[in-house]
Amino acid sequence: MIDQSLHSRLGVETTNGDGFGVGWYGEASTPAVFKSVEPAWNDRNLKELSGHVRSGLVFAHIRASTGTPVQQTNCHPFRHGHWLWMHNGSIAGFHDVKRELLLAVDPSLYLDIEGSTDSETFFFLALTMGLEDDPPAAVERAVGLIEHVGREHGIEHPVQMTVATTDGRSIWGFRYSSEGKSRSLFYSARVDTLRAQYPDNPVLHQLSDESRLVVSEPLGDLEGAWNEVPESSFGVVREGEDELHPFTPRPPA
Amino acid sequence: MIDQSLHSRLGVETTNGDGFGVGWYGEASTPAVFKSVEPAWNDRNLKELSGHVRSGLVFAHIRASTGTPVQQTNCHPFRHGHWLWMHNGSIAGFHDVKRELLLAVDPSLYLDIEGSTDSETFFFLALTMGLEDDPPAAVERAVGLIEHVGREHGIEHPVQMTVATTDGRSIWGFRYSSEGKSRSLFYSARVDTLRAQYPDNPVLHQLSDESRLVVSEPLGDLEGAWNEVPESSFGVVREGEDELHPFTPRPPA
Amino acid sequence: MIDQSLHSRLGVETTNGDGFGVGWYGEASTPAVFKSVEPAWNDRNLKELSGHVRSGLVFAHIRASTGTPVQQTNCHPFRHGHWLWMHNGSIAGFHDVKRELLLAVDPSLYLDIEGSTDSETFFFLALTMGLEDDPPAAVERAVGLIEHVGREHGIEHPVQMTVATTDGRSIWGFRYSSEGKSRSLFYSARVDTLRAQYPDNPVLHQLSDESRLVVSEPLGDLEGAWNEVPESSFGVVREGEDELHPFTPRPPA
Amino acid sequence: MIDQSLHSRLGVETTNGDGFGVGWYGEASTPAVFKSVEPAWNDRNLKELSGHVRSGLVFAHIRASTGTPVQQTNCHPFRHGHWLWMHNGSIAGFHDVKRELLLAVDPSLYLDIEGSTDSETFFFLALTMGLEDDPPAAVERAVGLIEHVGREHGIEHPVQMTVATTDGRSIWGFRYSSEGKSRSLFYSARVDTLRAQYPDNPVLHQLSDESRLVVSEPLGDLEGAWNEVPESSFGVVREGEDELHPFTPRPPA
Repeated sequence: MIDQSLHSRLGVETTNGDGFGVGWYGEASTPAVFKSVEPAWNDRNLKELSGHVRSGLVFAHIRASTGTPVQQTNCHPFRHGHWLWMHNGSIAGFHDVKRELLLAVDPSLYLDIEGSTDSETFFFLALTMGLEDDPPAAVERAVGLIEHVGREHGIEHPVQMTVATTDGRSIWGFRYSSEGKSRSLFYSARVDTLRAQYPDNPVLHQLSDESRLVVSEPLGDLEGAWNEVPESSFGVVREGEDELHPFTPRPPA
Repeated sequence: MIDQSLHSRLGVETTNGDGFGVGWYGEASTPAVFKSVEPAWNDRNLKELSGHVRSGLVFAHIRASTGTPVQQTNCHPFRHGHWLWMHNGSIAGFHDVKRELLLAVDPSLYLDIEGSTDSETFFFLALTMGLEDDPPAAVERAVGLIEHVGREHGIEHPVQMTVATTDGRSIWGFRYSSEGKSRSLFYSARVDTLRAQYPDNPVLHQLSDESRLVVSEPLGDLEGAWNEVPESSFGVVREGEDELHPFTPRPPA
Repeated sequence: MIDQSLHSRLGVETTNGDGFGVGWYGEASTPAVFKSVEPAWNDRNLKELSGHVRSGLVFAHIRASTGTPVQQTNCHPFRHGHWLWMHNGSIAGFHDVKRELLLAVDPSLYLDIEGSTDSETFFFLALTMGLEDDPPAAVERAVGLIEHVGREHGIEHPVQMTVATTDGRSIWGFRYSSEGKSRSLFYSARVDTLRAQYPDNPVLHQLSDESRLVVSEPLGDLEGAWNEVPESSFGVVREGEDELHPFTPRPPA
Repeated sequence: MIDQSLHSRLGVETTNGDGFGVGWYGEASTPAVFKSVEPAWNDRNLKELSGHVRSGLVFAHIRASTGTPVQQTNCHPFRHGHWLWMHNGSIAGFHDVKRELLLAVDPSLYLDIEGSTDSETFFFLALTMGLEDDPPAAVERAVGLIEHVGREHGIEHPVQMTVATTDGRSIWGFRYSSEGKSRSLFYSARVDTLRAQYPDNPVLHQLSDESRLVVSEPLGDLEGAWNEVPESSFGVVREGEDELHPFTPRPPA
């Protein structure tokens, strides 16, 4: 996180210093979320927690604001019940479409929105459209709606996104943009394959065969370690099984 | 501010440590606003500014959150154009009525809402209802709407408020609550009268005859220095003229 | 922590809103420390951590500054190696004696001082005087030195303290003041005794027989739950054994 | 400030996001100082103050920490009486020489040190050596001492610096490094010369003939607008008079 916050290579801004957040699952059914408005590279509590908390499923996000205020309620990951959500990208022209999109959020869910970002609105649209039952279909419907509303407002390319969401057991990762030039998304190769390829690498011996990393940018320089998620597709990572599928927005009826 | 933030005598909480804000008018037509999430008693920048910035009209607010997050976008005074607004009190059951009240805000104004408090929603309702043209009527209409919506949701006493608002020339101060038990509001006596009464008080000789303070709680112990604004009324302070009038909410048609 | 930070009953100030800190021991040999300059009652991360991190030994401190800046490096508990230290009280006239006390700190330890408080200086004096080998003797020597230096500067009552320190296995709690009017310090009664006395109290059934709380002020209203540590004494809490001894400062030779 | 904090071209780090500070002189004899631990690009209060406060002499600094904590007491400019001081660079091996350098600070001044940076220690050494009477000589003596102490500790190049200091009337700017490869320092050309050269540039018509900017890096692209301060030299800017002199550290006797 610290390296990427200072020297992002594939992002829009090289500096991601507008706060950060970490969510993780422990003994409780609801995940913990730790958020800060400081740059990740300065936050001493982040280093403390990283050194002392263990979890089998961690979400981590560094923020480069596209205009909304730097405050904890705008930091990812966002949480609802036992779900986490984080988004890299933006809803184009959000200021103009915000009100209409918020009106499409289920009124009972609406009350739980705490911040002012496009990313949280996107999360609550996906929740409204059934995220908890069928995540891929819900995200496809949410994106379809955002594109529909955006285009009504004359916005050519309404959605730019990689999204990761989880219920604590499976992780869904989405890569899509209306323009077809989406931000990057990578997932790690199988640890057993890498271990056979690099028998002397000590890090690989600390990871279990089930370890998976899903990242915006490759970490480190290990050749063969990272696979890119293709344009307009999504992947599912869960115990014993990884899948990759095409992603197609579903416009409102 | 520091004294009241630590030892409020008339507020609901004795401690008002959930951030603060100061707004003032200088050479520019739009007022400056300085906000912080720290308790006022700890903020070194507040002491620096207090010692180095002069203004003929200052709004200052210390916050005791009634539940919404402690972040700069939730600190008073709120600003729109050259108007400032601050509120002591709450909209009862705000979580339940928030969506309906926000829907009543003019869509073009809606986009400028930055935080998540009842007080900012109240400000934008007043703006929607003509604050810039006729402040007392606009606030009466906004309160009428909030009471109407609240009672539809079964809330007995929807509004508790003292409000101060200004366009940089006049100040309007309101005291009202649906229950008829409003938070306190005081204004200072005429400086020339006090000076005659206390000829040896050095502070009074530093104040001009036109100086006025409007406060939630009396400052200091000077007898005769403070007049209470009566229940269900509002005052106007402007150069050469002070007025006091009854305040009557106007329900929606 | 939240209750005491807002409504301290036995402290010098009723409000303790100048930051806080929590230290705990987990799997690693060195404890984790989480610190914040926000009032405890506002810190969302504190609530998250409290709900998701478990530990057999936790130190928690809320701060009411006696003048030094509100910054994370001034929040307790202070850590050195696997030791934690927190202090309630002050070194009188610290501004005048600070330089002389810091000169008495072992030069190799001196470099690890990060903040500017009297409490951290006190910790490093105790470390210099052998805290890691014999905590009671080291604290007695540190207090003896502070009293000696203070009195040379004409300070009548140089030390006011309750101190808690731990190596992760034992906890030492000290209560002392030069004046003989020390801040309060309490320890919880044996859980098995309380459980016999209050067979219907559900909290008591969640605590193990080995559970001990050492606190500045009693928590809750359970009669018989709290024993006061006497003036000029210290206690040791460790597995299977509690002790109480007199505390006598040792002046420098 | 915002541009340089995100995209420094000549600094060691491209990102300077570890807090910032602004000092300015107004009606009072002592300057005001506004400091924040946020990155300058995120700080709303900075924008507010920039738009509403006017001053004839402003110091502004963005920080990239070389290891010491990000806290307001470590932000530049540092203030003592009516003096301001800011430093770009570092004292090499500060952790090892800190104690010895602090011992060289006048004990009565020592008590006013608030933070933990090399830059503030450097300021207090210069004050100890007569900054208020003869700034160039005092800085030469302070640098001479730091180099002497550093080399005793085996540090090859102890000092890297550009320094600016002011008493509210004159500004002294120093450029020096033990290695002879100092960080950059520029001062603006005479406004009347630039105005003759660029008669159509509107900004130049808003500046008085006496306006001077001293900066770490050129602002904007105006050719001829910036002169580099040479290696091992210092400049003085005051009403009606600019000077440039060689800078030669003075080792302790």
